[in-house]
Amino acid sequence: MRTLKVPEATITRLSVYSRYLSKLKKQGKITISSTDIAVGAGVNPAQVRKDLSFFGEFGTRGVGYDVDQLNWDILKILSLDEEWTVALVGFGHLGQAVTMHRVFKERGFNFTSIFDNDPNKIGTMVEGVEILPSERIEEVISKNKNRIGIITVPADAAQGAADALVKGGVQAILNFAPIHLTVPQEIELREVDLAVNLEVLTFHLDIQRQGYSRPLSFIR
Amino acid sequence: MRTLKVPEATITRLSVYSRYLSKLKKQGKITISSTDIAVGAGVNPAQVRKDLSFFGEFGTRGVGYDVDQLNWDILKILSLDEEWTVALVGFGHLGQAVTMHRVFKERGFNFTSIFDNDPNKIGTMVEGVEILPSERIEEVISKNKNRIGIITVPADAAQGAADALVKGGVQAILNFAPIHLTVPQEIELREVDLAVNLEVLTFHLDIQRQGYSRPLSFIR
Repeated sequence: MRTLKVPEATITRLSVYSRYLSKLKKQGKITISSTDIAVGAGVNPAQVRKDLSFFGEFGTRGVGYDVDQLNWDILKILSLDEEWTVALVGFGHLGQAVTMHRVFKERGFNFTSIFDNDPNKIGTMVEGVEILPSERIEEVISKNKNRIGIITVPADAAQGAADALVKGGVQAILNFAPIHLTVPQEIELREVDLAVNLEVLTFHLDIQRQGYSRPLSFIR
Repeated sequence: MRTLKVPEATITRLSVYSRYLSKLKKQGKITISSTDIAVGAGVNPAQVRKDLSFFGEFGTRGVGYDVDQLNWDILKILSLDEEWTVALVGFGHLGQAVTMHRVFKERGFNFTSIFDNDPNKIGTMVEGVEILPSERIEEVISKNKNRIGIITVPADAAQGAADALVKGGVQAILNFAPIHLTVPQEIELREVDLAVNLEVLTFHLDIQRQGYSRPLSFIR
């Protein structure tokens, strides 16, 4: 296996660039400079050029980038030139926020399996998808061929949800439950902890108070 | 101003360690090794020791760490030894998920101002807090002395919310809207893009397919 030495922060920024390019395209913009992309994404222009350079040559010197072409190139890099069917476990507030999020739909993510254990939710329809009990995760994921599972259940139910998703055949899990999950090595696991992000802020506010400048920081 | 050279990833991991220590404390555990912390947080033991070493000497060689003491030390580092009053703008699914999130309460975050423009929501109470229209953000934030604002409105309303929060006097903003916001330099801004996290996963799944091994990765 070859190793692709791309910092993960580059991937997160590509996602942001692409979202910005989609917006510009809707506004009818044809070409754009790396400086304008940088402003829209909140980074410096050299960063934009460096991030893109990992994947090839884009744009024309002195002219800039073709908005539509660059967006399409980035979508291909992110593998968003195909539709992804996603399974969601936990249709509470966060689960509803995720499934209803306009951005997910725009980017080609299609929720085809939704699970929750609340008897009042089981059997109800969410945009054509029936909410099913979590005991059926393995069976349904396997049938629906979901490659990505999203976990939005409370911490104590998260590992069980992950185990069932893995048995059902997902290749990647996005975990929003505030607990670290254990999955087989071949499964891509990404954990998003809402509270962590708030605590990074309080840390920063406190070091300002203590007379330090900001620490080394990274994007998102 | 002195510069504190702590990688931001260290801060996010400290938050995770501390959450794990709180859980162990509830279970009655007295001491713990860096190896056990590492397993609970999904990192390697050397990483735990390195992260802690930025802030001083903790634990006793051959004995390990006192669970309660280390947790308290980390809470102080993260500035969570005080209560933080938070303002939330946007009481949709995501806003409700954030305000109801048990973890936020456990960590000392107290939502004292909540804003939404839906006439059906304005005037209703959320755990003792009245939902107010966003035209009152500046006035109410200033009165309630909220130092942190959380934005959970759609992309096109996010910059307006941020401007009002800044005018009201917040020092930090956590933005969940899928758009990069512009704020004065002295404001700590952290942006969490739910879709970006999903797109990092699709990138990883695709490079597996293309026969590459995983790229350099960082935690959370």
